[in-house]
Amino acid sequence: MKKLRWGMIGGGEGSQIGPAHRLGSSLDGLFEFSAGALDHRPQEGIEYGQKLGLGERAYGSWQDMLTAEKKRDDRIDLVTVATPNSTHFEITKEFLESGFNVLCEKPMTMTVEEGEEIVKISKKSGKICAVNYGYTGYSLVRHMKAMIQRGDIGKIRLVNAEFSHGHHADAEDANNPRVRWRYDPAQAGVSAQFADCGIHAMHMASFVTGQEVTKLSADTVSCLEQRVLEDDAMVNFRMDGGAVGRLWTSSIAIGRQHGLGIQVFGETGGLRWSQEQPNQLFYMPLNKRLQIIERGEANLSPEADRTSRVTIGHAEGMPLAFANIYTDLAEAINAEKEGRKMNPAADLYPKAIDGLRSMAAVVAVSKSGKQNGKWLDARPPMFQ
Amino acid sequence: MKKLRWGMIGGGEGSQIGPAHRLGSSLDGLFEFSAGALDHRPQEGIEYGQKLGLGERAYGSWQDMLTAEKKRDDRIDLVTVATPNSTHFEITKEFLESGFNVLCEKPMTMTVEEGEEIVKISKKSGKICAVNYGYTGYSLVRHMKAMIQRGDIGKIRLVNAEFSHGHHADAEDANNPRVRWRYDPAQAGVSAQFADCGIHAMHMASFVTGQEVTKLSADTVSCLEQRVLEDDAMVNFRMDGGAVGRLWTSSIAIGRQHGLGIQVFGETGGLRWSQEQPNQLFYMPLNKRLQIIERGEANLSPEADRTSRVTIGHAEGMPLAFANIYTDLAEAINAEKEGRKMNPAADLYPKAIDGLRSMAAVVAVSKSGKQNGKWLDARPPMFQ
Amino acid sequence: MKKLRWGMIGGGEGSQIGPAHRLGSSLDGLFEFSAGALDHRPQEGIEYGQKLGLGERAYGSWQDMLTAEKKRDDRIDLVTVATPNSTHFEITKEFLESGFNVLCEKPMTMTVEEGEEIVKISKKSGKICAVNYGYTGYSLVRHMKAMIQRGDIGKIRLVNAEFSHGHHADAEDANNPRVRWRYDPAQAGVSAQFADCGIHAMHMASFVTGQEVTKLSADTVSCLEQRVLEDDAMVNFRMDGGAVGRLWTSSIAIGRQHGLGIQVFGETGGLRWSQEQPNQLFYMPLNKRLQIIERGEANLSPEADRTSRVTIGHAEGMPLAFANIYTDLAEAINAEKEGRKMNPAADLYPKAIDGLRSMAAVVAVSKSGKQNGKWLDARPPMFQ
Amino acid sequence: MKKLRWGMIGGGEGSQIGPAHRLGSSLDGLFEFSAGALDHRPQEGIEYGQKLGLGERAYGSWQDMLTAEKKRDDRIDLVTVATPNSTHFEITKEFLESGFNVLCEKPMTMTVEEGEEIVKISKKSGKICAVNYGYTGYSLVRHMKAMIQRGDIGKIRLVNAEFSHGHHADAEDANNPRVRWRYDPAQAGVSAQFADCGIHAMHMASFVTGQEVTKLSADTVSCLEQRVLEDDAMVNFRMDGGAVGRLWTSSIAIGRQHGLGIQVFGETGGLRWSQEQPNQLFYMPLNKRLQIIERGEANLSPEADRTSRVTIGHAEGMPLAFANIYTDLAEAINAEKEGRKMNPAADLYPKAIDGLRSMAAVVAVSKSGKQNGKWLDARPPMFQ
Repeated sequence: MKKLRWGMIGGGEGSQIGPAHRLGSSLDGLFEFSAGALDHRPQEGIEYGQKLGLGERAYGSWQDMLTAEKKRDDRIDLVTVATPNSTHFEITKEFLESGFNVLCEKPMTMTVEEGEEIVKISKKSGKICAVNYGYTGYSLVRHMKAMIQRGDIGKIRLVNAEFSHGHHADAEDANNPRVRWRYDPAQAGVSAQFADCGIHAMHMASFVTGQEVTKLSADTVSCLEQRVLEDDAMVNFRMDGGAVGRLWTSSIAIGRQHGLGIQVFGETGGLRWSQEQPNQLFYMPLNKRLQIIERGEANLSPEADRTSRVTIGHAEGMPLAFANIYTDLAEAINAEKEGRKMNPAADLYPKAIDGLRSMAAVVAVSKSGKQNGKWLDARPPMFQ
Repeated sequence: MKKLRWGMIGGGEGSQIGPAHRLGSSLDGLFEFSAGALDHRPQEGIEYGQKLGLGERAYGSWQDMLTAEKKRDDRIDLVTVATPNSTHFEITKEFLESGFNVLCEKPMTMTVEEGEEIVKISKKSGKICAVNYGYTGYSLVRHMKAMIQRGDIGKIRLVNAEFSHGHHADAEDANNPRVRWRYDPAQAGVSAQFADCGIHAMHMASFVTGQEVTKLSADTVSCLEQRVLEDDAMVNFRMDGGAVGRLWTSSIAIGRQHGLGIQVFGETGGLRWSQEQPNQLFYMPLNKRLQIIERGEANLSPEADRTSRVTIGHAEGMPLAFANIYTDLAEAINAEKEGRKMNPAADLYPKAIDGLRSMAAVVAVSKSGKQNGKWLDARPPMFQ
Repeated sequence: MKKLRWGMIGGGEGSQIGPAHRLGSSLDGLFEFSAGALDHRPQEGIEYGQKLGLGERAYGSWQDMLTAEKKRDDRIDLVTVATPNSTHFEITKEFLESGFNVLCEKPMTMTVEEGEEIVKISKKSGKICAVNYGYTGYSLVRHMKAMIQRGDIGKIRLVNAEFSHGHHADAEDANNPRVRWRYDPAQAGVSAQFADCGIHAMHMASFVTGQEVTKLSADTVSCLEQRVLEDDAMVNFRMDGGAVGRLWTSSIAIGRQHGLGIQVFGETGGLRWSQEQPNQLFYMPLNKRLQIIERGEANLSPEADRTSRVTIGHAEGMPLAFANIYTDLAEAINAEKEGRKMNPAADLYPKAIDGLRSMAAVVAVSKSGKQNGKWLDARPPMFQ
Repeated sequence: MKKLRWGMIGGGEGSQIGPAHRLGSSLDGLFEFSAGALDHRPQEGIEYGQKLGLGERAYGSWQDMLTAEKKRDDRIDLVTVATPNSTHFEITKEFLESGFNVLCEKPMTMTVEEGEEIVKISKKSGKICAVNYGYTGYSLVRHMKAMIQRGDIGKIRLVNAEFSHGHHADAEDANNPRVRWRYDPAQAGVSAQFADCGIHAMHMASFVTGQEVTKLSADTVSCLEQRVLEDDAMVNFRMDGGAVGRLWTSSIAIGRQHGLGIQVFGETGGLRWSQEQPNQLFYMPLNKRLQIIERGEANLSPEADRTSRVTIGHAEGMPLAFANIYTDLAEAINAEKEGRKMNPAADLYPKAIDGLRSMAAVVAVSKSGKQNGKWLDARPPMFQ
């Protein structure tokens, strides 16, 4: 089993995202960290890359990296784009067009138009363009999807998702640059808390139900006066399979640490899962009792089994969920290399189209919020 | 300490509400069950009343009861109206006008106009008109209100309340008369799930924050085809002290048993409480740790202390919370009899004005739901 | 339905136990508080009794009460003994011998010999002698017993019970008289924490399994130097149906508020219940999933149904559990009065024999603790 | 930062332990998998090693591996022994004596005498001999230790630890070879459930309190008839700093998935942690409120900070805890290589002496269990 070659752009020294991707990509021993342009400052990037063992494949810029890697026979199999948000589009585009597989940090782009372009390029190139909505990597989120798909809770009536925390609630800390940029349209775009956290919950709603959001209405507020963008939003939506959606996201919910959770209610049952207790899935079949599905228990779906690493009762957490995205990608890449069909249970990583749909939803939330909650089409133009 | 005399209209043999009120009123030994018109069928009402020890004060109709009790020197000190919703207005009105104190089951009236009339009559008569939003009787809900009032979590930014259960989710059971009437406008009025459950959550939001709802926007849906009225609603609202509100209510949330809960977020802290775990209040002071306040612990507020009956660690439940409403009323009545000011910590029972405001909110939710979530004034005309 | 007449000895002004018994006895409207000798100081007792509406049946001493009540045609149907522990035996004995039904606070007696005497008197007199192990009144504890009895978890292998709190952990508070007497052999007898709390857990183990403790081994310690009696004990035991038992009790477990809980493991399933979350019972059938049984759900056992008062999802707490003991007793008394068999689902109140067995266990724990955990017979001599 | 070279003995294809160690050792990028004798069948071991990329350093036996590695300049820096229990002693001994650092799976040896020998060899050689009690790698377990060490809960009075699950409760599955060998003295030694699981809880009690077990008394039972060794045990113990201990372990506790947990009670506070919810630590300071310490929160101890990888609110699980042991070892090895003192916050990996003490405790539990719970010295002879 030869390791795949993996490269990263961004994720320089001191960043949080760099170690997370290195951990995620290496966890199952499927990727080898082979190349990188880790810092926008060329010298720092090269030095840090060499320190991490990249040798001559530690580059000073993503442009240099692209030029050099294109020429190599042992070119990287996958590149992760973990740079500031505004550069995602350009870098992803260039690498896709040059025939590389890409995993892009969210948001994939800053506009819907760019998103559509990436989707088209990805399709045309035949290359993978994945987007990092990593929470869907949890084993029991995969199982939830599988249960819904096979009809365990019947036709879906309603999804209630949330992602609410309290880490931006301190007015005295609001001007701290680490926090402030998120609420500044010049840096963050049209949305703050929804684009940062809420979109994970909305993507998860689509992921587990297999339905896409068609229209939405949003109530967005800035609880701290100095903020232009929202720090709290309530979004109602409808999905293309008939499901109704509710989604609450907040960054001022003091006492909540993370707060990503989802409840799905169908005609014959209900499911509930929360990121802070990710190893249990609460399942209630209609007119029966609430039961607790444990990660790692016998006879789970193939989608859950292959994303579970330790025995039942041993907690698994976010780093392993994140690694599952890389493991999916390795399977996709290897399948292509080997000219076989990939394991369908692995074809669950978020794709360019998810990045595009998410961007369209972010724009719709922002617009609806400014228009007293007017119901707006939440789909990208190409799907309207 | 002489017991007060208590009467009940409705709550006949086999009803759930009758035993609940008898339990609540007698629990602290402050009221004696003295009179009643317990059934709309005169003979059955008299017989059941006599069986319960009412003797000659077991009446065949509320009209007979009113006529007879008015003439007695030992007339009842409080009458509870626990009849079908559409009769609440008339009975409450008549008893108030004849100088009786009234505790009316919710909803107090079927229209906002009637609600305004009751508020005026109650004011004019000087008599108590209470409405049974009994969940506010919980000791830690009282403490939550006291903490907010004294500033423990600063100015309130946001309230998130919910009351979602799954007991009407079964499509096969939807035509069961016990369930069906609730979704039939002819019997239930303009709203089903919001009027039935959601309004408890909204009242609680007002109760704990001390703020009134001014405007709202609602997304109401009927997940079961055969239903005219909503079985799920999301309501966004604003309060007169500046708080933002979110409220979700559902009767199709399979796996939820009760689901009344509230989270309040202020500038310097957050609070969280749930009816299914009512003896703990979760409190997070800004930048500190989540801590668990236990019912019955030392140094709680007077409002919590007087509504707590057993020592810390022993669960207290709904019947005791409900009894607290009666205990508040006994204090109000006794204080008036004795010509003294009532204990302010007891002046927390829901009043006619709460019944009126709730009715206005129900109407606004129904209208907004039909107008794509248009923001509407949620206040009764007399407060607009 | 005529109310039964109820009397109480002890439970004077300011006590905690008095209001608890008045609440418990009156909750279902089955008993009327008719007589009492509420204080060891005659004048105070009479005045307080009159204040509570007892009139001439407010007595200055239990002896006066016994003499007077014996002569009345409307003599009390049940007397509760809530005096200091050392007086339980004498009062219980005298009332039983005079033909009264008795509910005695725990411990029923201070010695095993006295316990045997009470058992014999009770049997001879044909009168009820109940002992207040009130935690067994919880609806789901009753259901647990019913499930085990009908074989839902197969033959019982092991019971693990505990009752550990942290309310006596403060060394500075240890000389507070309210705390100190409990650890003083002169006042408390041979055992402190086990006799006070642990015995509730042991009784519950017997109650739910239907098995009696035959032998035991105890490790008792005093974590606070100034204490003679134990503030922490671990007891291993064996039961007459073959079950193995473990029981931990502590009063120095800082962070635990109450801590009464029980786990039962059989050949085909396991059950777990805790007093701080009394409305849920966790049930795992062998090789299946953990499921949550809710108080008030459909199709529970008759034993659970009759002890559940409010609908599913509404918390019920200790006062209602306690009231169930009184409701059992009312059924027992009424059945006898009416010359019929009592409802077997109500014949679950703790009896003199339970008080006796508990006393024998307390003595055995104390002795074993002093003999390095030597295994000792835990049965009263009359059952050895 | 050059990677250390790591080798493994055992952990062949299809084993659970092999992937766990590979994951743990590689997670932080500190070790490179360089050599291995992965299977007792030479050919299979070499093939699997080559498949995993070991090339010529894939050996057919641990003896071959020892011989070859000794001669290399780039010899492995650490070898993990993950072979069947009965071979741990010999392999560990040989590698230590040849100057290798060793991480041995538990149990380190099958007898106390062998354990003492390993301790002596390790000391003499100056090489690391670590033993894999991996649960102590959890960030909040480290923090618990740090809090106790700095006196946050005062002098320790009592520890209550448990490790109880229900995975061996099925009588029909008891003869399944995968289960049966554990209860067979010929294969498992003197103890089953205590040696397998209970010892983790006992080690954790020592780890967090910094106290060693001096004597103990055990009640061991076999709930399934066909078993010779115990499937349930209750152990009382005393520690050299004065703490009292209680420890329950079971494999027949149906409904429990994992069940490793610990509670520590001191003079001024209490702490509680459970492996199934490892990202929260419950802390109650005396006479204050229960508070929840979150993994990753600000201002934790250095011991917790360095073992926490993702931000607060994101669950971390067992694989990361396990990796912390390897990260500790890398720091120890690198410090020695660099001739500096190691980070004291990393010097927390379990050592040969812990393996020895554990073996002595296992033997004492087994003996005490056969002698009606007689109190026995639990220390190895060299510490008596």
